[in-house]
Amino acid sequence: MKINRLNTPEFVVNSAICKRNIEKMVLKAKASGSVFRPHFKTHQSGEIGEWFRAEGVRAITVSSVSMAEYFAGKGWDDITIAIPFNIRESENLNALAEKISVNIIVDDAGVISVIDSSLSNPVGLFLKIDCGYHRTGIDVDNSFEISKALDAAKDCTNLEFKGFLTHSGHTYHAGSVDEIRKIHQHVVTKMKRLKQRWSITFPQAIISLGDTPSMSVVDNFSGIDEIRPGNFVFYDLMQASAGVCKYDDIAVAVSAPVIGKYPGRNQIVVHCGGVHLSKEPLEIKGNKVFGKVVFLNDSGWEIPQQDIFVTSLSQEHGTINIPSDILKTINYGDLLGILPVHSCMTADCYQRYISVDGELIERL
Amino acid sequence: MKINRLNTPEFVVNSAICKRNIEKMVLKAKASGSVFRPHFKTHQSGEIGEWFRAEGVRAITVSSVSMAEYFAGKGWDDITIAIPFNIRESENLNALAEKISVNIIVDDAGVISVIDSSLSNPVGLFLKIDCGYHRTGIDVDNSFEISKALDAAKDCTNLEFKGFLTHSGHTYHAGSVDEIRKIHQHVVTKMKRLKQRWSITFPQAIISLGDTPSMSVVDNFSGIDEIRPGNFVFYDLMQASAGVCKYDDIAVAVSAPVIGKYPGRNQIVVHCGGVHLSKEPLEIKGNKVFGKVVFLNDSGWEIPQQDIFVTSLSQEHGTINIPSDILKTINYGDLLGILPVHSCMTADCYQRYISVDGELIERL
Repeated sequence: MKINRLNTPEFVVNSAICKRNIEKMVLKAKASGSVFRPHFKTHQSGEIGEWFRAEGVRAITVSSVSMAEYFAGKGWDDITIAIPFNIRESENLNALAEKISVNIIVDDAGVISVIDSSLSNPVGLFLKIDCGYHRTGIDVDNSFEISKALDAAKDCTNLEFKGFLTHSGHTYHAGSVDEIRKIHQHVVTKMKRLKQRWSITFPQAIISLGDTPSMSVVDNFSGIDEIRPGNFVFYDLMQASAGVCKYDDIAVAVSAPVIGKYPGRNQIVVHCGGVHLSKEPLEIKGNKVFGKVVFLNDSGWEIPQQDIFVTSLSQEHGTINIPSDILKTINYGDLLGILPVHSCMTADCYQRYISVDGELIERL
Repeated sequence: MKINRLNTPEFVVNSAICKRNIEKMVLKAKASGSVFRPHFKTHQSGEIGEWFRAEGVRAITVSSVSMAEYFAGKGWDDITIAIPFNIRESENLNALAEKISVNIIVDDAGVISVIDSSLSNPVGLFLKIDCGYHRTGIDVDNSFEISKALDAAKDCTNLEFKGFLTHSGHTYHAGSVDEIRKIHQHVVTKMKRLKQRWSITFPQAIISLGDTPSMSVVDNFSGIDEIRPGNFVFYDLMQASAGVCKYDDIAVAVSAPVIGKYPGRNQIVVHCGGVHLSKEPLEIKGNKVFGKVVFLNDSGWEIPQQDIFVTSLSQEHGTINIPSDILKTINYGDLLGILPVHSCMTADCYQRYISVDGELIERL
């Protein structure tokens, strides 16, 4: 079924845009000699994973043990679980490590021996480093804690220290592309110094970085052993608004049937609410928006010159502010497309996706 | 498995609280002589539906055709789909109307004949009325448009006019319980007048109202033919914060394993992010919060005196601001519970729930 024949909200993936985003990142990583270990948390799809494999990708990143199990089942045998390891899941980790090569991240010296003694199979260990995002990780300048953690790592039987991993999530809140570059440069300098500092004790240790804003606006990753961006596969309004991508690079849209017309207040209402888009807002010129309208066609969608935004969401309703001349051309039952604010969150609202050709795309 | 043995984020339902919330609303509706047609969009669970049936509930409300199909499959044979009807789904509606009694809502005269001619089975029709929420509906004072719609309804072959339906969603944004009561009183007065105005032409027409804030703080529904609250089955922080319920009335919590401790900034991090709680925020004393910490035990959870809030969310991480004396008592791998901001949105993140006894609860 062609996407403009859809009857309900569905998550539509434009594979041509998606593959172009993948290829671009693959080429940049190759040119810089960096290992490309994409984060699969954004798409969580075995099929989209194959588009990466076709470009030579062999190692991936995920954000939960269950996601690692899913992709192991899809033939991926080198997976980093990039969230501080949840020690309640040691049994599942151990089972996974029996079959594939798996890495975990940890940011506390005390917990390393606890995890190690709960395992009977080898697992790679990355030390999570905080370079300014302040979500998780040991502060990059806290040599005392880093040293303590590395001491604990040396004593391990099953955990093998692999290197230092950081996520510059603060680039998502940067005000400009220049600021993203500045944050990235700061992080790279700090991480390279850290690797250098420990190069005699751990000559094999690598540094691993990953965030879509930095990896998109920077062309040269030289000296970064491994990159782990994820969102770039789909991109979204948040990234376009930050100057990280163009609207044309956004590879996904949600189908939204028109169910209400309110010319008196220049609004229409679509069947496409918080459960279809997620309630993540984006501030544009002082206003909260939850999506941007595009016009679906046979081969994807057309992006109107004029910004038309979803301005309010309830569970199943989306309210769209729309100029009166465009409102006049819209009818009950028309099908619009909505570019999402944050594609990772929107994708997670669905149990499967649909290609622009109407084929089902399986996901976790 | 007892809930304090869970290893990952799960949506835990405390059936005792849930059943108490249901019973309370059933009794109030009975005492007022109102038909109780609860909205099932909050729980979307066949099993929880049975808890309503046990209290004598026979008619329900849903917010999509697919939800109606699901509950029809669970033996519900009187369903109102309370979202302006999406004419792209006429075929599914017609199939449903062959098996059960189903009502739709419409807020535009022009669309009524289009829907009618797409059907070959009888379907009940409610006119959606706007009493101040301004999401959908014909303005309650717009006699011209209401009259036009009723004219269109009279000409129908398959659609049968049932009455006037409104949703006072603006009570969710009321500043106080008094303001909720005021809005409710205004809406009831307007709707009763509307029914009266058309009582000669449509003597069978009913008025149907439904929102959790009003239905929770008002005890007497006399003169309201039908009530349709939904959220009250679980309640949540938003309702507690508005004075609509107590923390003790919240029937659901998400399990959240501790994966990070940051005494330097009085924070802990749990594996429980936007995909587990939804990103709906609640403003409390000028700060955005995304959930409130409770302590899980064998039979449910204990609510600490002190408010401890989830203050930031990413896809899989939740950051909690926590006083240093409590932080000291928390260990890696501990399992916390999180009361959600908006239970409808949080429930929708899950494909099944878990009872406090560790039994699976099926949902759509």
